[in-house]
Amino acid sequence: MSLLSIGTVAFDAIETPFGKTDKIIGGAATFISLSASYFTKNINLVAVVGEDFPTTYIALLNAKGVNTDGLQIKKGEKSFFWSGKYHSDMNGRDTLITELNVLADFDPIIPESYQDCDYLMLGNLTPMVQELVTQRLVKRPKLVVLDTMNFWMDVALDDLKRVLKKIDVLTINDEEARQLSGEYNILKAARKILSMGPRTLIIKKGEHGALLINDQDMFYAPGLPLEEVFDPTGAGDTFAGGFIGYLAHTGDISFDNMKRAVIHGSAMASFCVEKFGTENLLNLTPELITTRVNKFAKLVTF
Amino acid sequence: MSLLSIGTVAFDAIETPFGKTDKIIGGAATFISLSASYFTKNINLVAVVGEDFPTTYIALLNAKGVNTDGLQIKKGEKSFFWSGKYHSDMNGRDTLITELNVLADFDPIIPESYQDCDYLMLGNLTPMVQELVTQRLVKRPKLVVLDTMNFWMDVALDDLKRVLKKIDVLTINDEEARQLSGEYNILKAARKILSMGPRTLIIKKGEHGALLINDQDMFYAPGLPLEEVFDPTGAGDTFAGGFIGYLAHTGDISFDNMKRAVIHGSAMASFCVEKFGTENLLNLTPELITTRVNKFAKLVTF
Repeated sequence: MSLLSIGTVAFDAIETPFGKTDKIIGGAATFISLSASYFTKNINLVAVVGEDFPTTYIALLNAKGVNTDGLQIKKGEKSFFWSGKYHSDMNGRDTLITELNVLADFDPIIPESYQDCDYLMLGNLTPMVQELVTQRLVKRPKLVVLDTMNFWMDVALDDLKRVLKKIDVLTINDEEARQLSGEYNILKAARKILSMGPRTLIIKKGEHGALLINDQDMFYAPGLPLEEVFDPTGAGDTFAGGFIGYLAHTGDISFDNMKRAVIHGSAMASFCVEKFGTENLLNLTPELITTRVNKFAKLVTF
Repeated sequence: MSLLSIGTVAFDAIETPFGKTDKIIGGAATFISLSASYFTKNINLVAVVGEDFPTTYIALLNAKGVNTDGLQIKKGEKSFFWSGKYHSDMNGRDTLITELNVLADFDPIIPESYQDCDYLMLGNLTPMVQELVTQRLVKRPKLVVLDTMNFWMDVALDDLKRVLKKIDVLTINDEEARQLSGEYNILKAARKILSMGPRTLIIKKGEHGALLINDQDMFYAPGLPLEEVFDPTGAGDTFAGGFIGYLAHTGDISFDNMKRAVIHGSAMASFCVEKFGTENLLNLTPELITTRVNKFAKLVTF
């Protein structure tokens, strides 16, 4: 089953109460692809970077089996760069720098070899670019998952609503669900969002877990209390990558299997936050992941 | 198994975005006792009210099998009265009126017939009164559960820390756990609080559920997304009542059984918030409760 992942591949510079980094590899598509790579091979990436992007970073992705034929490298241009500083409680953050650079006019070119795509992960990006990708795939994928954020609800709501009609699963956080629906109650918010297009909705609640919901059923994945939360950057993307990677691996998009996929995504996100950036995602093993998934299972069993 | 419940029995006047009430029956011990009454008989109440407290309200408690021999009725005095207004998101609230009245010099007298107490629920009250109750019981109960709030951490921290050494289970919310421990991380906060006395800690997270934790194990009870959240008043007390009521009914205070007790407490709290005050707690049936508990089970099963 081939998985196509679209999103940013970028530089991040992160400051948390526990330390700070120089420019390190980041971006939604990076976290998604690395996370998914623990579940499925045949991952194709579409993104854009500048000439400043180190080939060693691209090699990191390739080493995890991620095909980067669709990664455009723009000569003479610079990569997208985000810098942020987390508050002392780690729940809030301030954006210090956003340099769009190559992202400003990103035209997502899909290599011919990517056309046979079963699972499409539209990582957080301009809704118009996300829509372009759906239009450029000749065959509709078996499953389309979209991640977005409040920023796009503020500046490109109509575009976002249009692309929502073309997807199967939407992942957003609880505040974003409230913003998108105009409903404070989470169940009412979910109903309204499900009427906008996606058949399934995942509401991410940070340390409190995640809610998977369709028009007939719902499932609550707990948040695993962690001893150390070092850097939340990329946790949502890592969750999405684990979710769709698990689905691609199992080839089963039933609601029951999505429950297991949400737990696997949550397990991956719990690894992500324990170190800076992608650090923890580079050194996992199937055994570590299974042990972590079992912790989630034990946490809710009664 | 006899259950002794201490706390306020009082008047509440509540305003939420969905309406407002006149003075209605409220108070921690009221919610605790009503909730517990669905699981166990032989519930003994110790509290104080004024002459203004309607006998019909006392009859409501008696009708649910709650023994009110320990309810002191102070001639010529007025009952404790609390009035509050919830914010539009229902998560925050402003206290409009607090009239201590009879509560100002509450001396918790334990009737002789209450002395054979197996389960003691120390509802939210002055820590000194909670401690007095533990001193006045000749035999230590099998299980002592204490509920408290940030207010007592602000004004009576030393008293609270002293009574914490005498209890088995503490129930507080996540903000209070952070305040009491001085740790933001919930696991670290829990470890520190467990070193203060209680062997088991329940961290209530409102709509996000509850965490049960001891020094070896932990359990996450999800929050059940509800269509209508009408009035959160008493939800924490109702949770505590369902928790200790279930334990008293089963006579098993193992961690595994406490998991089930937390789910039953959560189910009771979910009923509580669907109507104003105690309204929903007066009309439940074992079948409704079982159905609700099964919803919690289904919500986390994968």
